[in-house]
Amino acid sequence: MGAAAAAVPAAEAKRRRHGPRRRRADVVVVGAGLAGLTAARALKRAGRSVVVVEARDRVGGRTLNHAIGGGDVADMGAAFVGPTQDHILALIKSLGIKTFPTYNTGSNVQLIKGVRTLYPAEGLPPDPGVTQDLPALLGLDALAKEVGVNAPWNAARAAELDSQTLATWAEANLQTETGKTILETAVQPNWGAEPRDLSLLYVLFYIAAAGNEKNPGSLVRLITTGGGAQESRVHGGTQLISAKLAKALAGRVELGAPVRGITQRKGGVQVHAEGLEVHARHVIVAIPPTLTGQIEYHPKLPAKRAQLVQRMPQGTLIKCEAIYDTPFWRDDDLSGQAVADVGPARTTFDSTPRDGRPGVMLGFVGGHDARVWAERSKAARRAAVLKNFADYFGAEALKPKSYLEQDWSDEVWTRGCPVGFTAPGVLYEYGAALRRPVGRIHWAGTETSTYWIGYMDGAVRSGQRAAAEVLRKK
Amino acid sequence: MGAAAAAVPAAEAKRRRHGPRRRRADVVVVGAGLAGLTAARALKRAGRSVVVVEARDRVGGRTLNHAIGGGDVADMGAAFVGPTQDHILALIKSLGIKTFPTYNTGSNVQLIKGVRTLYPAEGLPPDPGVTQDLPALLGLDALAKEVGVNAPWNAARAAELDSQTLATWAEANLQTETGKTILETAVQPNWGAEPRDLSLLYVLFYIAAAGNEKNPGSLVRLITTGGGAQESRVHGGTQLISAKLAKALAGRVELGAPVRGITQRKGGVQVHAEGLEVHARHVIVAIPPTLTGQIEYHPKLPAKRAQLVQRMPQGTLIKCEAIYDTPFWRDDDLSGQAVADVGPARTTFDSTPRDGRPGVMLGFVGGHDARVWAERSKAARRAAVLKNFADYFGAEALKPKSYLEQDWSDEVWTRGCPVGFTAPGVLYEYGAALRRPVGRIHWAGTETSTYWIGYMDGAVRSGQRAAAEVLRKK
Repeated sequence: MGAAAAAVPAAEAKRRRHGPRRRRADVVVVGAGLAGLTAARALKRAGRSVVVVEARDRVGGRTLNHAIGGGDVADMGAAFVGPTQDHILALIKSLGIKTFPTYNTGSNVQLIKGVRTLYPAEGLPPDPGVTQDLPALLGLDALAKEVGVNAPWNAARAAELDSQTLATWAEANLQTETGKTILETAVQPNWGAEPRDLSLLYVLFYIAAAGNEKNPGSLVRLITTGGGAQESRVHGGTQLISAKLAKALAGRVELGAPVRGITQRKGGVQVHAEGLEVHARHVIVAIPPTLTGQIEYHPKLPAKRAQLVQRMPQGTLIKCEAIYDTPFWRDDDLSGQAVADVGPARTTFDSTPRDGRPGVMLGFVGGHDARVWAERSKAARRAAVLKNFADYFGAEALKPKSYLEQDWSDEVWTRGCPVGFTAPGVLYEYGAALRRPVGRIHWAGTETSTYWIGYMDGAVRSGQRAAAEVLRKK
Repeated sequence: MGAAAAAVPAAEAKRRRHGPRRRRADVVVVGAGLAGLTAARALKRAGRSVVVVEARDRVGGRTLNHAIGGGDVADMGAAFVGPTQDHILALIKSLGIKTFPTYNTGSNVQLIKGVRTLYPAEGLPPDPGVTQDLPALLGLDALAKEVGVNAPWNAARAAELDSQTLATWAEANLQTETGKTILETAVQPNWGAEPRDLSLLYVLFYIAAAGNEKNPGSLVRLITTGGGAQESRVHGGTQLISAKLAKALAGRVELGAPVRGITQRKGGVQVHAEGLEVHARHVIVAIPPTLTGQIEYHPKLPAKRAQLVQRMPQGTLIKCEAIYDTPFWRDDDLSGQAVADVGPARTTFDSTPRDGRPGVMLGFVGGHDARVWAERSKAARRAAVLKNFADYFGAEALKPKSYLEQDWSDEVWTRGCPVGFTAPGVLYEYGAALRRPVGRIHWAGTETSTYWIGYMDGAVRSGQRAAAEVLRKK
């Protein structure tokens, strides 16, 4: 697909003869991920006509099912849901989809400085460093509360908190090397980044967002399984949610149509996609912030918005899944969860389907490890990830039936996972432009949410909020 | 111009009939700024055929002449050249263009905490804070030497230096509020940013680059006038350099043709621009890193490159120029240079043409001030900037003959000035992708230089280097 229409002479020739197809709707939505599809559903329910335009030949954005035989799937993108994520949970329920608990029984593995230690799945890593640094880490919740979810850029100490990286905070506030290592291990899968990449203000915003209107956000809820963001999984895979949403919008979702330009005129907008032009009264752009910067706008966007999206990169994350006949680690009373100081796969989860077969081990390769390992061969990555699994769970891990991986940084229509984040200086100066509409353009996507940014719940919330904005306008 | 070809029905209709115009050359260059034009010149001299494709309807990129009457011009973009900038100086000379000294006679003004102090133009601000913090600031040169210009990402302490912002360094190393204020005042025009926006490693790289192969870079050379990067100006305006380069390439520069896609095939490349398709053996992309991310590549770029350009935003800079009958400040023995802790125009220069008339006062509005003031009315900006000038140089400054401004963040084909910079974590992880060719694609632009990054000299060097890369290939 793409600008290189010249690379598809037949399509180009056809377009030259006929020009792009034209459609008309009350609202056009750019992006058929969870945010865009949720927005489209809300608009349709309110009686508006809608067209969703999607660059890929599939729906679901950062969710992706991969069939692993026997009707089972592996989640190659977003995988987990948990308490306080009310909006995605309600959506899942309304679509008749089931969730089930993430396997969280027995012992987790900690592998630090070559020493393998077991600890209860419901507990904390036993390292003295963790114990010593826990108060400081938990102290982030209070700072997060101070920052809030609605306009962290207006917080009293916003400039100060946005002047340093999370690494600088860790250097000043954590006393042990293990504490810093554990923080790194949490940051890599959560943001696809390193502590040095992240603004402290942004991290606090993100922690504040790990809750809902009744329950203040907390770091523990963000990173834990039982009672936390990894508590449950989606039977049939998370992409099923988008597939069902799209089905209900049958005929209104245009795939394979990357959007090149958005023109605002008196009374309406035109969305110019590959081979398709949609005229509507409003547009909801529901793609990662960095990708919104790929579209050409007429009139041009305000400088603040144009500069924001230069400053909100997508994280770096590779999901690796090894498939075994059975989840053999369960026999050894292991939960399948590990944290380690050596990569590439420094955190793992048991991602076996609900019925317990086949065994699926998920490894997250994030941040620095993802950047380094993405440049090596798939065979080298496979060998290194399986060695990690073996070090955590035993030699049986070396011989999977199959091995899958998904490098989200290599996806042209995502550019990285799990989320677009900000380095220091950005949220304070540009945060206000994140979801401020520009005329008839409204912004959605998990990055624009106030709760559960970076999660499916944030995507759903953002789609609902953008749809409500549009509905209020008419 | 742009994707919204539908906004120009006649052009669209014509293109539908005929398809894009086609050209062929040995090398196609994307971007007719100093980097691209220098590359094209070098290739032409080596006997290669070349086509330069430019989005704007003018050449010169971040240089821009604005006529102010009587044949004089104001530099609305890059303005200064200085010692060790050998490549731009040689180019200027070879084109028969003259330079002349930036006015640097009499006293500079310091306005800190409401107190206006004068100090010699060749000296330092007299504030005790500056004296106290000077050793720490000068100490950056030694750190910069350690980092070097060729591969700062490989420096021994690269990860550590790229884990913090310049603000964090200042907090730990500067002892006075004035020291921090002066640093801010230097950072705003130099990077269009705040100390909190910048990685310490990147700043050290940039300082190391403020020199040449024989003279190590220094902070003082970066920020001073006599003997420094602001030493001289270009008679006729800096855009004249590009105009002359383009004239010598007559018929080979295509204006108004934004590039949408680059396709690499066996044996060659195709560059797909608005209404134009160029076939060549190699392509040199000579535009700011963030804009290289707007082009669609087939095959797609390596993830490391695709993620780098999400992480290298353009700075935020507004240049304001007030025109007076004469440079009246000279009568009061003032140099026209000021530093202040209150914006929007916190640094100024006498930008009068060589013959001394009319008087032109230049104010830089950068970083935070540029972000805030860009959203206000032009009348409000004008009043605030002229008030700054009056506070520095007297009430006569309030009544200019005319007032000009250029907000580079609002330029779709630049996205910000003076330079693309990096926040923490980026140079260490992604720096190696900055000028590494991708097949037949070579990268130029001042950000890819090893010396005088962000300056015209860096642009010229980068164009020469990219041309040499291509010539070596054949």
